[in-house]
Amino acid sequence: MNLQNFTFGIDFGTESARAVLLGLEDGRPAASAESYYRSGVIDKLLPVTPRCVALGPECALQDPMDYVDAMREVIAATLQSTAVRPEQISGIGIDCTASSVLPVKADGTPLCILPEFRRDPHSWLKLWKHHSAFAQARTIRDAALERGESWLSEYSEIVSPEWFFPKILETLDESPDAYLAADRFIEVADWLVWKLTGRETHNSYMAGLKAFWSAGRGFPSESFFAHIDKRLEKLIGTKVSKDVSPVGSQAGCLTDRAAAWVGLRPGIPVAVATSDGHAAVVASGPLSPGRMVMTMGTSICHFIGGRRRKVIPGICGCTEDDLVPDSFLYEAGQPCVGDCLAWFVGNVMPDWCVREVTRLGMSSYEWLERQAAALAPGESGLLALDWWNGNRSVLGSADVSGLLIGPTLSTGPISIYRALIEAAAFGTRIIIERFEQHDMGIGQLTACGGLANKSPLTLQIFADVTGRTIGLLASEQASAFGSAMLGAIASRQVTGGIGHDGESAVDMIDRMHCRNRSTYQSARERAAVYDRLFAEYARLYDYFGRTDGSTMKVLRGIRDDARTKRPRDNDAGSR
Amino acid sequence: MNLQNFTFGIDFGTESARAVLLGLEDGRPAASAESYYRSGVIDKLLPVTPRCVALGPECALQDPMDYVDAMREVIAATLQSTAVRPEQISGIGIDCTASSVLPVKADGTPLCILPEFRRDPHSWLKLWKHHSAFAQARTIRDAALERGESWLSEYSEIVSPEWFFPKILETLDESPDAYLAADRFIEVADWLVWKLTGRETHNSYMAGLKAFWSAGRGFPSESFFAHIDKRLEKLIGTKVSKDVSPVGSQAGCLTDRAAAWVGLRPGIPVAVATSDGHAAVVASGPLSPGRMVMTMGTSICHFIGGRRRKVIPGICGCTEDDLVPDSFLYEAGQPCVGDCLAWFVGNVMPDWCVREVTRLGMSSYEWLERQAAALAPGESGLLALDWWNGNRSVLGSADVSGLLIGPTLSTGPISIYRALIEAAAFGTRIIIERFEQHDMGIGQLTACGGLANKSPLTLQIFADVTGRTIGLLASEQASAFGSAMLGAIASRQVTGGIGHDGESAVDMIDRMHCRNRSTYQSARERAAVYDRLFAEYARLYDYFGRTDGSTMKVLRGIRDDARTKRPRDNDAGSR
Repeated sequence: MNLQNFTFGIDFGTESARAVLLGLEDGRPAASAESYYRSGVIDKLLPVTPRCVALGPECALQDPMDYVDAMREVIAATLQSTAVRPEQISGIGIDCTASSVLPVKADGTPLCILPEFRRDPHSWLKLWKHHSAFAQARTIRDAALERGESWLSEYSEIVSPEWFFPKILETLDESPDAYLAADRFIEVADWLVWKLTGRETHNSYMAGLKAFWSAGRGFPSESFFAHIDKRLEKLIGTKVSKDVSPVGSQAGCLTDRAAAWVGLRPGIPVAVATSDGHAAVVASGPLSPGRMVMTMGTSICHFIGGRRRKVIPGICGCTEDDLVPDSFLYEAGQPCVGDCLAWFVGNVMPDWCVREVTRLGMSSYEWLERQAAALAPGESGLLALDWWNGNRSVLGSADVSGLLIGPTLSTGPISIYRALIEAAAFGTRIIIERFEQHDMGIGQLTACGGLANKSPLTLQIFADVTGRTIGLLASEQASAFGSAMLGAIASRQVTGGIGHDGESAVDMIDRMHCRNRSTYQSARERAAVYDRLFAEYARLYDYFGRTDGSTMKVLRGIRDDARTKRPRDNDAGSR
Repeated sequence: MNLQNFTFGIDFGTESARAVLLGLEDGRPAASAESYYRSGVIDKLLPVTPRCVALGPECALQDPMDYVDAMREVIAATLQSTAVRPEQISGIGIDCTASSVLPVKADGTPLCILPEFRRDPHSWLKLWKHHSAFAQARTIRDAALERGESWLSEYSEIVSPEWFFPKILETLDESPDAYLAADRFIEVADWLVWKLTGRETHNSYMAGLKAFWSAGRGFPSESFFAHIDKRLEKLIGTKVSKDVSPVGSQAGCLTDRAAAWVGLRPGIPVAVATSDGHAAVVASGPLSPGRMVMTMGTSICHFIGGRRRKVIPGICGCTEDDLVPDSFLYEAGQPCVGDCLAWFVGNVMPDWCVREVTRLGMSSYEWLERQAAALAPGESGLLALDWWNGNRSVLGSADVSGLLIGPTLSTGPISIYRALIEAAAFGTRIIIERFEQHDMGIGQLTACGGLANKSPLTLQIFADVTGRTIGLLASEQASAFGSAMLGAIASRQVTGGIGHDGESAVDMIDRMHCRNRSTYQSARERAAVYDRLFAEYARLYDYFGRTDGSTMKVLRGIRDDARTKRPRDNDAGSR
């Protein structure tokens, strides 16, 4: 029987929650579990009775109660699979996608469970990839430019519809009643911590990256918000908590009520939440300069550490690293990677592939991976732009879209699948080159996340396209692993007796972090072909992403006009 | 019992042969039948034993004996379905795709049925859409430019790999033995007429459009061919017949042997063959200026008449109209329309669509048509370039490829399907505008062919995109109908007693031609949206089609390099 203490890390992803139980002393995972959200991502119809409510395009909602259920289920399932006893749990850390924004009443009740708001999409949890707050992102950016708000440069003058305030402003614009009824708008990560500890606090990582906050200057001013809309003047401090806590600190302790509900003992320290990507960075060890961490799943987040804050055009995320003194964390990203492959499987994978998959008893991805690996770089004649869900970095443009060039009558689906993976790799190379243009050299890549674990082909293509070695983290649940480490860091004052008195957060990260399971090397011959393809990718990138009035933007305008004229009453065109 | 005489028209398309039996007096079809080619289009593996031979990309071959079988079958099936007796048949006309080139021995035996050549792809029938003779098309064009050959301007300085001589030169380059062994290279249409009449003659329509011939100057000179390759010097007159006969004349009469073989009486006049598209033009009636005929099937051919021959850049087909005195026939085309929709069904139509199709007991096309019709123009945000099989007019470039722009995570397969139809319509609009820029106004469109008959949505989109009214011919077999009319015209001297003594070809066409079944009008609101989309189509058209070193051409170079390095030993990437 292992007598050491353990911490729980729980990672709330886009489709499911994953828990990892980590030994405090040896830093080894003892058990893990996963639980899917009952309603998944809600992007077509709100699951309400008597009849469903149709959602607009770019909408991506979730049911917050699915998160609560999933949390209880993964904790129970993890404990059931191990001999570790609940009394041995000495800390909890939580991470989540961001910005995933929930309107709640003053007592934390989500607006969407109130009967009078159940049919209003704006009362539900707006998932990070809820992308319909375009106009609002533009309004906020225009207002900041107009007023010369100095903080805007910290975000490369980009405001993404994915962020915190565009989502809130969208609610004000489209459902003023829901806006009025919401006592708080909160990151779902912080809401879960609130449910566990009874304390509402905004985590510094998301506040910094998604809500224009920094430790030095706080949030934007009342007059800025009033300039956008008079009704927003007192937003900060009333509907949005001013209380921001650094990642790595303790948010509070498990309340009696929450303890009973999750099946753990009361009083366990709970860490301030962070983003799923950031938690994975923590899992990967201290982020020395020159190493980039990629969390690869539905989307990719890229993380790199720096000694000072600088403005890198097109990189809209930089925040102080609360765990490592005197350093900054830069975040870039591609919003649609695993998601794009899933789009392929759901929308353009022909039935003869499905029959083949069924015959061989494989998953679609496994089969596609095997087939696509048999193709040589460049052989298909295809090239794609990976903007099926916009471009986060370096363009920071949510109104670009996908592109596939090169199909002929002899183009098969496998070639398209491989082209989508390659496009994601080219997008990452653009990001790496942007950092390097600003004297942040990147020598080595660390990968983690569902896609990295499931697709060796993806890692090989990324290695070949970027010309760099990629290390794959040993844990398949890097985010949950990192959250568990944050739980351990948060519980230091309580569990100090375990033998690591006075250990700094950095020291703990260095000691407990996850090692690599394997590495992928770039091969010269493949890299040479990809250099040629990348030159074309970069050309298309400029032409469609950087030309004023480019076709993609015009098409979006035409599309929006067409949809305004004829409300979407059927679903024939999509799934 | 109907005592009038009848003519047989047989149309040899890409996948099947169709026959129509037409009343000589009333010009009404009495019966029809269809027969598919046993081996279809051979584009992956040559169907030979003991093991198949893998074909390269862009390869599209056929078995000429399939044509012979199909001819016998459709004649028998047509006669079986009607009370018309074989003695009542007084003429036969044949049309075929072009340039579909067959190497044969001096007695007409196809090279590919000889055991020593059975495994050589170059000994088979090269179908019009056999597209691998790129390099040879370039060689021929370069030679003509270098020598200042005046006839090149008649073809807008374009030489397509689809044409007669590039296909022959490809055989010389890649299989000199097959070249040597071939006593003749011949259009399969003319070969079929040869089989029926015992006379080998080149029809003027294909000679003019696909083989650089004109009535005034004949074929290019010996020195021109010698300039390309010494071995080609005596090509014309030895391996290619110099005997060119005008369309509308009689090639000969059914021989005893052929009569026994097709089940008709000997001596029936057989018309000089023509292309399937041209036959459909004949069926549609006299081609007055301002009317354009579109034969819509796997590809689209556009026909328009003119009073004089002029050079219209990008329109590479103009030939004297042998049926209408003092006029010229212009031909333009899009090589991949129905083919592109078939590509969609075979390569990117997901299994849930297939399940839906199966559940409803519809054909895939029927179901897709119904779903796509529910979308409004512009609603999908998608736009495509229809170059899955190159661009014939106005670019005359076989090395461009397809493009799909605008997909997002909410893009479904139906939207893609509709975008492919719209792209074809935009391509037709580019062609119409090119004619109009050269003072050949086009007021009205006549449509026929499989796609036009099966897809009202396609015709509606074409009407909306071009802003013109489209009449759909009543006969579903317009080409066979037109060939039957040519059979009637060819048999005038024999059947002169029927009451139309001295009737000119134009008069016969005017009297017998097929009427419209229905018309499609353009709607202002939809046309306005398509005007906006077309502006973007035209922009992409210029950027990818007219820019030197455009991405499409670079990708093709990279692809060809990759394929050279690694011979294609599996078929994972395509189907």
